[in-house]
Amino acid sequence: MKILVLNPNTSEAVTQRIAETAKKAAYPDTEIVVTGIPYGPESLESFYDEAIATPYILQSVKNANEAGYDAVINAAFCDPGIEALKEISDIPVFGLEECSFSAALLFGNKFAILTEQKHKEAVKSREVRKHGLESRFAGVKALNMGVVEIANNPLKVKEAGIKAARELIENGAEVIILGCSSMAGYSEDLEKELKVPIIDPVATTVKMAEAFTALGLRHAKIGLYSKPKIQKMK
Amino acid sequence: MKILVLNPNTSEAVTQRIAETAKKAAYPDTEIVVTGIPYGPESLESFYDEAIATPYILQSVKNANEAGYDAVINAAFCDPGIEALKEISDIPVFGLEECSFSAALLFGNKFAILTEQKHKEAVKSREVRKHGLESRFAGVKALNMGVVEIANNPLKVKEAGIKAARELIENGAEVIILGCSSMAGYSEDLEKELKVPIIDPVATTVKMAEAFTALGLRHAKIGLYSKPKIQKMK
Amino acid sequence: MKILVLNPNTSEAVTQRIAETAKKAAYPDTEIVVTGIPYGPESLESFYDEAIATPYILQSVKNANEAGYDAVINAAFCDPGIEALKEISDIPVFGLEECSFSAALLFGNKFAILTEQKHKEAVKSREVRKHGLESRFAGVKALNMGVVEIANNPLKVKEAGIKAARELIENGAEVIILGCSSMAGYSEDLEKELKVPIIDPVATTVKMAEAFTALGLRHAKIGLYSKPKIQKMK
Amino acid sequence: MKILVLNPNTSEAVTQRIAETAKKAAYPDTEIVVTGIPYGPESLESFYDEAIATPYILQSVKNANEAGYDAVINAAFCDPGIEALKEISDIPVFGLEECSFSAALLFGNKFAILTEQKHKEAVKSREVRKHGLESRFAGVKALNMGVVEIANNPLKVKEAGIKAARELIENGAEVIILGCSSMAGYSEDLEKELKVPIIDPVATTVKMAEAFTALGLRHAKIGLYSKPKIQKMK
Amino acid sequence: MKILVLNPNTSEAVTQRIAETAKKAAYPDTEIVVTGIPYGPESLESFYDEAIATPYILQSVKNANEAGYDAVINAAFCDPGIEALKEISDIPVFGLEECSFSAALLFGNKFAILTEQKHKEAVKSREVRKHGLESRFAGVKALNMGVVEIANNPLKVKEAGIKAARELIENGAEVIILGCSSMAGYSEDLEKELKVPIIDPVATTVKMAEAFTALGLRHAKIGLYSKPKIQKMK
Amino acid sequence: MKILVLNPNTSEAVTQRIAETAKKAAYPDTEIVVTGIPYGPESLESFYDEAIATPYILQSVKNANEAGYDAVINAAFCDPGIEALKEISDIPVFGLEECSFSAALLFGNKFAILTEQKHKEAVKSREVRKHGLESRFAGVKALNMGVVEIANNPLKVKEAGIKAARELIENGAEVIILGCSSMAGYSEDLEKELKVPIIDPVATTVKMAEAFTALGLRHAKIGLYSKPKIQKMK
Repeated sequence: MKILVLNPNTSEAVTQRIAETAKKAAYPDTEIVVTGIPYGPESLESFYDEAIATPYILQSVKNANEAGYDAVINAAFCDPGIEALKEISDIPVFGLEECSFSAALLFGNKFAILTEQKHKEAVKSREVRKHGLESRFAGVKALNMGVVEIANNPLKVKEAGIKAARELIENGAEVIILGCSSMAGYSEDLEKELKVPIIDPVATTVKMAEAFTALGLRHAKIGLYSKPKIQKMK
Repeated sequence: MKILVLNPNTSEAVTQRIAETAKKAAYPDTEIVVTGIPYGPESLESFYDEAIATPYILQSVKNANEAGYDAVINAAFCDPGIEALKEISDIPVFGLEECSFSAALLFGNKFAILTEQKHKEAVKSREVRKHGLESRFAGVKALNMGVVEIANNPLKVKEAGIKAARELIENGAEVIILGCSSMAGYSEDLEKELKVPIIDPVATTVKMAEAFTALGLRHAKIGLYSKPKIQKMK
Repeated sequence: MKILVLNPNTSEAVTQRIAETAKKAAYPDTEIVVTGIPYGPESLESFYDEAIATPYILQSVKNANEAGYDAVINAAFCDPGIEALKEISDIPVFGLEECSFSAALLFGNKFAILTEQKHKEAVKSREVRKHGLESRFAGVKALNMGVVEIANNPLKVKEAGIKAARELIENGAEVIILGCSSMAGYSEDLEKELKVPIIDPVATTVKMAEAFTALGLRHAKIGLYSKPKIQKMK
Repeated sequence: MKILVLNPNTSEAVTQRIAETAKKAAYPDTEIVVTGIPYGPESLESFYDEAIATPYILQSVKNANEAGYDAVINAAFCDPGIEALKEISDIPVFGLEECSFSAALLFGNKFAILTEQKHKEAVKSREVRKHGLESRFAGVKALNMGVVEIANNPLKVKEAGIKAARELIENGAEVIILGCSSMAGYSEDLEKELKVPIIDPVATTVKMAEAFTALGLRHAKIGLYSKPKIQKMK
Repeated sequence: MKILVLNPNTSEAVTQRIAETAKKAAYPDTEIVVTGIPYGPESLESFYDEAIATPYILQSVKNANEAGYDAVINAAFCDPGIEALKEISDIPVFGLEECSFSAALLFGNKFAILTEQKHKEAVKSREVRKHGLESRFAGVKALNMGVVEIANNPLKVKEAGIKAARELIENGAEVIILGCSSMAGYSEDLEKELKVPIIDPVATTVKMAEAFTALGLRHAKIGLYSKPKIQKMK
Repeated sequence: MKILVLNPNTSEAVTQRIAETAKKAAYPDTEIVVTGIPYGPESLESFYDEAIATPYILQSVKNANEAGYDAVINAAFCDPGIEALKEISDIPVFGLEECSFSAALLFGNKFAILTEQKHKEAVKSREVRKHGLESRFAGVKALNMGVVEIANNPLKVKEAGIKAARELIENGAEVIILGCSSMAGYSEDLEKELKVPIIDPVATTVKMAEAFTALGLRHAKIGLYSKPKIQKMK
């Protein structure tokens, strides 16, 4: 099985970090190829960034279909362009957010999300509504830290993450999703302290992609993700 | 007041049709400028098409901000890139779908949508969920006609539209939204026959944009639509 | 266009205040007539007050239909008797609450309401449920002030309003609705401080009524608002 | 225990029919007094009719509080003025609709409602949403018969009722509520044919009123039903 | 009328306490028989305990059907095995939780639950979702006390109960359900202090069981509670 | 990795069929052990059957914890006793229904379920509500066939399954779950005909159990599935 793990931005450092997690999570005989996109933002932190990156992500997924991959993982938590990717892909495409949500449902009554900045709380809350999962959602809390700070200050992340997660748990969360790729690598620390399942999106999605691809499951092509017809461009 | 009505595709015929409807709907002293995007698909009929068009829509909205417009209408029913547009815009941006939904709530218990093709039923149903309005939604029915056919065969559209709308009304709909710009111009015919309010998205959004812009209302910039920071591109 | 803005109580001071806001909000060529009801409570602060006032509101709306008005605005935030008014009216009737809700949906992920007294929080929460909008609702907070106090103590209103709104924003609100006519006039102050859109119900409803009436949209008469048949009275 | 069963219209025939059902349902030592309202419509078939009747219902409930009753039943399925009645009453007030809904939840997964005319389907669907019970609701079907016809043509009612109920059952209903007082007396016939619990609102509400009144339960006076303060009238 | 009030555990002290409350609540001519189950846990404090007890509860309900009872009350708040009990019973079976929920809907906008230990908050929240009542739910708070402590330390219960209930009321609760049989007997104290309706599940269910049984209402046997066919055992 | 696939009934034929599917689905180095329960019904077709079987399932899961298994699959679609199993188990326990639901969310807008008999439609609909997934649910249809007939008459199953699935697809389903173990083995036939993803619960759950167990994910022990304390038995 050959899976493309696509980092939908242009940061090589992030591509590298995703590669480590993905390869560590994968079965030995899964061929994991990790790449970024050829052009686009270094980091996707807004709908704007996602919109700018999506044409390049689409091209990468088209290429993966032609290059004989069995599945693609779109490796940013915001699931940029996920519906369009599923439309144009015959092979299954998995998003970190959607897979994290599906996994979280199995391990507790309600899940919650840690995010970076305050304004992302609204974004995540809207994502949960889009997926129809508000009944299982215990909330989202920001660490109020920037991406760079998260990458460089593990002690502060741990402290802020534990504080935020404790409030979410008090509020009914039983499963915590690390809702930002910059938090990768913190799951063990948090799990040890908090004693609840912590979902690391990259690792979780790799395992789910392997599982569903082995089963031959792929997205329906009759409704939400119907194959687009080719439009005339000008 | 100066409003840019942006047709987010490259079909000049569609731009022309939108211009007629928009100008007819607007108050005499509203300056309505209607343009298409400089490059992109001739028609947006999939998430893929939307993703390809969105970078150009974004650029047009940026330009409108700089050119002194008071508001922008993103004139396709699928609201392509609407969140990103609101993020990067200081002037209000209005989508046809979101405005049609808000209007429909006022005129009956439940609304329904007419769409073109069967697979769009899932897309519209998901949009309604994303907006949190499932409780007010009586369903969506496709005419099972292509865009060109809809434009060229008014008799068939009327017949198919009335049949589909009657089923939706039987199912609880009291307001019908013409969920595709190719249906513009059919609202009077349908209203005469069906005796229920028919929402024409372009006309409705023009009037709402005038109203809210006159009030000085614009989208919040603290959560879902926070201003994006500038990312390094590669 | 001729719009009756009906203050559904008997306070001339309130009628006067509504008239100022409504006329300021309207287009110059909209004829705005503002009146109170001929008999009834001076203020509507309970379902009981609304029930006592509604027969007189109904009569005023009947008169407006006969007097050639194009639309009626029922100018109390509690939308007293709104369903009955729509039933008996051929011209469109707009409620402040329903219009404020529809507007708020367009400007942020979730909206919230400021109200006067603690017990009104339950009332507003129930209204939101009745409208099927719980998914977009971030809560309601009372200023814990009476109507007279609100009218006479702007500094305290501003202070209490900002405090309450901040809590609602912390809780996910991006749009704040001034849920009581006694708060009219405070929107600018609050917007300056809070940097989020503040919905002033009277002004907002006037603009929406103009817009929808110009479009010829009116409520469906086939379901929720069907024309009542005349009953024998005893 | 002394319960006022208030027929909130002026039809003596209906008052008589309610009296029979209520007295048959009550325990022997419950004193059941059945009256109509002194002035108002002969039948409540619209929000308009309810609005006209409500001031008289309110007066009757006030009188019942002073006359030493232990509880009041507001005996029309539309629960006219129910919130206002609860506000001004210290003794418990029970509505047929709300009690029927609460009872129905106990006897099957989902309930459904039979109503008279097609347009009432929207009204009932909205009531269910107001009560927050959409998840337990399998739908509503009209007999498409008028009140007089229902009273005079039992064979047609039975036939139409069974047909409508079968469709609702096919759709997931396990409990059928007779959603109109004119259907009283048909529950046994329908139950025999359909083999599902049929809720007769008058009888059911009488028994529930007895039960809750005996327990000393009454509605909260701190939120939705807070005691109104006395307003100045003009 | 003869009702079996079944304490679904083996604690004779609890059976005794239930008997007192049930007999006090019942009408004089209702024959109330209270028993425990012959074998099983002394207390049901987990899904595990419920699963172990349920086969014995089932046997008791079967016996009650044969012994000529008119109804059974399954007298633990967790409603252990309630679906299975309804399946195998021709006579109506009433659960404390489901009856408390149905009652609570009638007395305020939203209800809340007091429970024993923190982890039960998730359990109760899930129960509310299972019943489709999240829209009417204001939350659940634990006293953070064990069953024995609750039984032996009334002062602490009262203090903790009032504190927890006040937070729930602040959060929108208007009706408080004593969500654990060990709290029986505290309703008067709490009601006096909090001025909101307090639902005592045993007393409430006894009255509702009397009421519905007198009406001849019983659960539908066509869907959720269909009679099971006899399986071969090994 | 060593997984116990527990058939929670006593039919050796079913155990055998599950074993085939499970072993075919598993990775070569996953040790799959398939057993039935030592005593209980031959088939679980009601809540009653589940209640009778659950104590034996619990014992089997306890044994699996002691015997060094890494995970348990509770291999009946009704997820019998799943909450209790998770409470008493330190190793992860996976249910077919919950895993099928989580998987289905990833492959289309809405999923639907095929079941055996009409009355199971209510049961499945209630399960979906319990899991908070009604927004993603397009319905359930019965084949109206018994378990034995399903096992012995593949042609009729295929015909009935395709007919039922087509209705569900017309109604918005994009993913079909085979909601009964007796339907195992039909997924390929249906997928070929219907062109939508078909979820085979046993195979899907095996792959998901492997994936999540490899990740070290297990259910939270702080809320819904908290470890039960040991009760005194009598």
